[in-house]
Amino acid sequence: MNDVPVFARHETFHPRYGWFKKCYDAVTCDEHIFTREDATVVLGVGKNMVQSIRYWGTAFKILEESSVTSRAQRSTGFGISEFGKNLLGENGWDPYLEDPASLWLLHWFLLKDPCKATVWKFTFNEFHRDSFTSEDIFHSLREHVESSYPKTTVKDSSLQKDINCVLRMYVDSFNHRQVKEDSIDCPFTDLSLIKQEGSAKRFSFNYGKKNNLPNDIILATCLDYIANAGHNAKTISLTNLLHDQNSPGMLFKLTESVLFEAVERGIGDDKRIVLSDSSGLVQLSFKEDPSILADNLIRDHYRD
Amino acid sequence: MNDVPVFARHETFHPRYGWFKKCYDAVTCDEHIFTREDATVVLGVGKNMVQSIRYWGTAFKILEESSVTSRAQRSTGFGISEFGKNLLGENGWDPYLEDPASLWLLHWFLLKDPCKATVWKFTFNEFHRDSFTSEDIFHSLREHVESSYPKTTVKDSSLQKDINCVLRMYVDSFNHRQVKEDSIDCPFTDLSLIKQEGSAKRFSFNYGKKNNLPNDIILATCLDYIANAGHNAKTISLTNLLHDQNSPGMLFKLTESVLFEAVERGIGDDKRIVLSDSSGLVQLSFKEDPSILADNLIRDHYRD
Repeated sequence: MNDVPVFARHETFHPRYGWFKKCYDAVTCDEHIFTREDATVVLGVGKNMVQSIRYWGTAFKILEESSVTSRAQRSTGFGISEFGKNLLGENGWDPYLEDPASLWLLHWFLLKDPCKATVWKFTFNEFHRDSFTSEDIFHSLREHVESSYPKTTVKDSSLQKDINCVLRMYVDSFNHRQVKEDSIDCPFTDLSLIKQEGSAKRFSFNYGKKNNLPNDIILATCLDYIANAGHNAKTISLTNLLHDQNSPGMLFKLTESVLFEAVERGIGDDKRIVLSDSSGLVQLSFKEDPSILADNLIRDHYRD
Repeated sequence: MNDVPVFARHETFHPRYGWFKKCYDAVTCDEHIFTREDATVVLGVGKNMVQSIRYWGTAFKILEESSVTSRAQRSTGFGISEFGKNLLGENGWDPYLEDPASLWLLHWFLLKDPCKATVWKFTFNEFHRDSFTSEDIFHSLREHVESSYPKTTVKDSSLQKDINCVLRMYVDSFNHRQVKEDSIDCPFTDLSLIKQEGSAKRFSFNYGKKNNLPNDIILATCLDYIANAGHNAKTISLTNLLHDQNSPGMLFKLTESVLFEAVERGIGDDKRIVLSDSSGLVQLSFKEDPSILADNLIRDHYRD
């Protein structure tokens, strides 16, 4: 995918729990909130945090730029995306983010194309080391940026900021080592996607079953993955769902058996989706529009 | 203090990030929300969680029972407390809980008298072991309950539920050991008040400086502590602020030097509060109503 690369727009702040509802509420009240002169007062945070909330709002696809008003009013307006309304709306799935499934969905939406968090996409898709340091990510990332975005000039310090933010966002004990007076631990550490190895500055991806990642959400993202890929296939192999760029297997760091079991259990009695195994080739087939099936699965998850 | 002892009313759920704003919003819309037949639908959670949100709302002193309406309508109504309005109101200090100071204040309000979390109060005030297991707390607690509340019958299982909830609430890595499919880590683990020792089931209090606990909040709780004690003294020794039941030193697990430095820095140029050292007796003196001084300090913290 040829996303426009985006670096270090988070102003070094990782996303915080309150920011999802805060940016939903703020933009619902005023689509031009972020460009208002008194934005710091209305949002009750410093100038850099205003920018960070705005960035994360769009990166997580809660917000979308509304181009119509931007021309008329000569400033960028924002609207709430369909995902934003579904998740955080008054009768939304989980506006107060009480269900860990919502964090998994937010992680999924952050990474899915078009992705505004280039280093995140790189880390989860292109960086395959078993054990690594922050410096290891940096060197691989530097190479990746130079080969994938040859026309883009990006400072080392920006890449390092992004890597630090990825680690602070996903590694549970990363914050405790640092003196961060104004920081609250990042909600996404609950996903246990990257773990620290002992007390050293080494990390590794945590492959396998995630206790707080529901089967129906895994199946929904499989279908959303196909829908988002844009081709009209009505079948996909489990291998693709495990190893392809931006696949659920890749973004959730699943193993084959975990993915298989989750998909099987997620399907349950649903006749519209079939898991078949023909001489070792395991495939997921479906009869209806995968985006609608995915949407149904997510709605059912929150309805139960 | 002779609080009515309260056990296991949390329905085994620890408080979650979203619940503070959720219960504020819900009660603002309908003071009888918790006794409505469709409470599960409106709040979007199961029946036990409705009870848990209601309990935590009152335990953290965000909500208060409104007795006037309860008689007329034959059901308990709830109002938002002054603290609830100050913290979570539309122009409140920190309605989306972005500042770790808010978690410290919530911890403070949970424990301060009258306290509806008996086991929490016991754990932070009466349990002084250097290193302990869940069972150690249980045995001390059992004795404490029998001597302090001889007329109260409480099941071992209720005490154990409370102890588990305390540990899940404050110990960072406690959740990871358990298979909790529906759980998100508790925000209060960020306070680092109780730590796990190695991989064993042993814990200890984390005495000393807390990086995300601001000096002005420590000073404010010192003054609030005196105000809440109810006597009209205009001076208190640092020793009392460190070792007394429900003192900031006790509830925040501070050491003498950390408390001294925090109070000194918290005072800054404020002429209304004086820290004096007379032949080793360090005292905090103040000229105005300590509850107003505390309130001013907190407001200034969030204004900066």
